[in-house]
Amino acid sequence: MERNIDNQLEELKKLMLEMGGYVEKALATAMEGLFKQDLNLLTSVHSIEKNVNEMQLKIDNACLNVLAKQGPVAKDLRLILSMIKMNTDLERMGDQCVNMAYIGKDMVGRGQNVNFSDIEKMSLSARAMVKGALDCFVRLDSAAAEKILKMDDDVDELKNHVVKTSIAMIKQNPNLTESCLDLILIARNLERLGDHATNIAEDVIFAFTGKDIRHGGS
Amino acid sequence: MERNIDNQLEELKKLMLEMGGYVEKALATAMEGLFKQDLNLLTSVHSIEKNVNEMQLKIDNACLNVLAKQGPVAKDLRLILSMIKMNTDLERMGDQCVNMAYIGKDMVGRGQNVNFSDIEKMSLSARAMVKGALDCFVRLDSAAAEKILKMDDDVDELKNHVVKTSIAMIKQNPNLTESCLDLILIARNLERLGDHATNIAEDVIFAFTGKDIRHGGS
Repeated sequence: MERNIDNQLEELKKLMLEMGGYVEKALATAMEGLFKQDLNLLTSVHSIEKNVNEMQLKIDNACLNVLAKQGPVAKDLRLILSMIKMNTDLERMGDQCVNMAYIGKDMVGRGQNVNFSDIEKMSLSARAMVKGALDCFVRLDSAAAEKILKMDDDVDELKNHVVKTSIAMIKQNPNLTESCLDLILIARNLERLGDHATNIAEDVIFAFTGKDIRHGGS
Repeated sequence: MERNIDNQLEELKKLMLEMGGYVEKALATAMEGLFKQDLNLLTSVHSIEKNVNEMQLKIDNACLNVLAKQGPVAKDLRLILSMIKMNTDLERMGDQCVNMAYIGKDMVGRGQNVNFSDIEKMSLSARAMVKGALDCFVRLDSAAAEKILKMDDDVDELKNHVVKTSIAMIKQNPNLTESCLDLILIARNLERLGDHATNIAEDVIFAFTGKDIRHGGS
């Protein structure tokens, strides 16, 4: 016979993935809106993110209930704690998509011709990291989680490149200061998104192996 | 007779405050190092932050133990969940202090004469917010927590001012681009520190009243 807690954990995982789906959609929409300089797409990011926020409250509440009513231990308890943390990470990722959408709107308003090629590369990597982190969580795959940790380095390197080229561009043409600053801020938001995907991967590793690899733990 | 869980919760609160003390020290040191352009102080932020990271692992582990062994419910359970979240916030605040110390070192290396007056104002507000958030937690004071939420607006306004004046300065003298960008990044780190203090205040309100005021909940 199945344990009651197994059903509740399955239910929680489904909520978590639903929330992750909204984050993926918010990110894809923010990036498409940015690259196409499309105000409607950029505006819609905010309403997608509302779903993320609603899911956050729902999931926290559901975790609290399982803890209070089931008194889980060992792997079950670790899984719930990981989901509480993932929940915070996914919510922050939603915020970052909204930040980028706001920046994107400023850029549309300014109407300057900006080269997004590095940001496009970064966004592909960041999206792969988010997808990868959610996949790890579904498949309970700690090897896949370790891959995510490595991908984070690429995103950081691309961000450094964006900062460097943006500074050079400002010095060449100070009228582009705001637009170049916006590129830097978008790059930093994508970098932070990658960091949150990394946090999720670390949480997955902890939940399924009990190994805490944060702060250089092996 | 005192309940065993009360002692464990008191122990956990002490750890939390010890961690908070390291964050306050990291922030004060990063700011002093920045304003005095003192490489030794800036370098020492990293070792202070190591304590923050160690505390994070210790507290997560202690929370896991209380949950597994005591099966807390209601207010006790909410308190532990709040501490798990506070733990994440404080750790991120430590990271932000390290970020600012790195930026400060770049600025020392560059040796340009930079006006820190707005950053000094921001840092006073951010420090007050961090201290306030920890005080709320000690005194279990949800009215004080609500004050923190209001202080966050001042920090955001100061950040906008830093961004505006830095952009104007870049346009006036593009040779200052890197230094002005560094001011903007420091302002953003201080803004994020304020956001984490706000998160802690929200968690305190949730733990002691059961009210979830995130995302516009009243």
